[in-house]
Amino acid sequence: MSILNIGVLASGRGSNLQSIIDACAAGLIPARVAVVISDNPKAYALSRASLAGIPAVHVWPRDFNSREAYEQQIIHTLTAHNAGLVCLAGYMRLVGRELLQAFPGRILNIHPALLPAFPGLHAQEQAWRYGVKYSGCTVHFVDEGMDTGPIIIQAVVPVWEGDTADQLAERILAEEHRIYPEAIRLFATGKLALEGRRVRVKE
Amino acid sequence: MSILNIGVLASGRGSNLQSIIDACAAGLIPARVAVVISDNPKAYALSRASLAGIPAVHVWPRDFNSREAYEQQIIHTLTAHNAGLVCLAGYMRLVGRELLQAFPGRILNIHPALLPAFPGLHAQEQAWRYGVKYSGCTVHFVDEGMDTGPIIIQAVVPVWEGDTADQLAERILAEEHRIYPEAIRLFATGKLALEGRRVRVKE
Repeated sequence: MSILNIGVLASGRGSNLQSIIDACAAGLIPARVAVVISDNPKAYALSRASLAGIPAVHVWPRDFNSREAYEQQIIHTLTAHNAGLVCLAGYMRLVGRELLQAFPGRILNIHPALLPAFPGLHAQEQAWRYGVKYSGCTVHFVDEGMDTGPIIIQAVVPVWEGDTADQLAERILAEEHRIYPEAIRLFATGKLALEGRRVRVKE
Repeated sequence: MSILNIGVLASGRGSNLQSIIDACAAGLIPARVAVVISDNPKAYALSRASLAGIPAVHVWPRDFNSREAYEQQIIHTLTAHNAGLVCLAGYMRLVGRELLQAFPGRILNIHPALLPAFPGLHAQEQAWRYGVKYSGCTVHFVDEGMDTGPIIIQAVVPVWEGDTADQLAERILAEEHRIYPEAIRLFATGKLALEGRRVRVKE
């Protein structure tokens, strides 16, 4: 089986990036992280990439006149590294049409809630404040919406009496680190099929 | 401990009503179903009540000029049976201000989804079509919104590959029959406390 090149887009500390790097290194996924791109020059994700010997690229959105031009630069960088899959890992921007059309059905995201509940920012705190008894995380294909694309894997996490929002977020994060590599493995091994907006897992 | 009188509002077959009747009869809840009221004369819930020796009352909304007048009749019937708790069980109407104010913090509902995802009608099919990997059910206090009140208990149910929406609904229903009596037990034994819109369970 050929190795899939993954381009990771990250804006923050990159703990999900690390789980992907580690799963690739451990041979759990027939893939490798070929490039890490960040819109934030201070993202620790860039340091993690460098520490792992992975090209780390910073692209300033403010260097471009439009989102289209910014995304063309992202696409250029991904293509230069032969990316066959794009993984968003704490990437704090909506993906535009350019990037979606350049990688149709090949962009994944992870979100720290049981979508379609609690899309958008601070999902763990949203869930905690709402008072749900279970939350979790979701890996999904990216579409034009905010956290609206077809769902590949979800994991459920209980909210315990006495939990703070931070404790809940920590419990969810542990599951994120488990299901994102697993979703990438399913993609890389051709196990995912779309039926309408439902994702069938063939194994 | 004194016995809590429950008034149940139902519009359909009343399977959740039956689970409440059975849990009371088995002594699992210090409560009894004192009256069952339906807006639908053909609701099998009314037959279930009669079979269990419980007063079964039909109230036609169309006999009243307004929702307010209709709800006054419901309140009159509930009060006449000393209801201390109102349980909606497949009741297909929004509860209005009259009923809410007559039983503040004393109206429960069960919904066949992990709220706040998939409120409203046909929640199981909504979830199936969306393609979530987990759904479930929720018992919550009723407020002015559609399935928006504070959450007491939730149960999680997996969506399996190859499931139909009906199979998912059946799996959810089994959990409904478990958590609705449990939520009523917590209410009846004084174990529920509201903190903002979060429900704390004291045990």
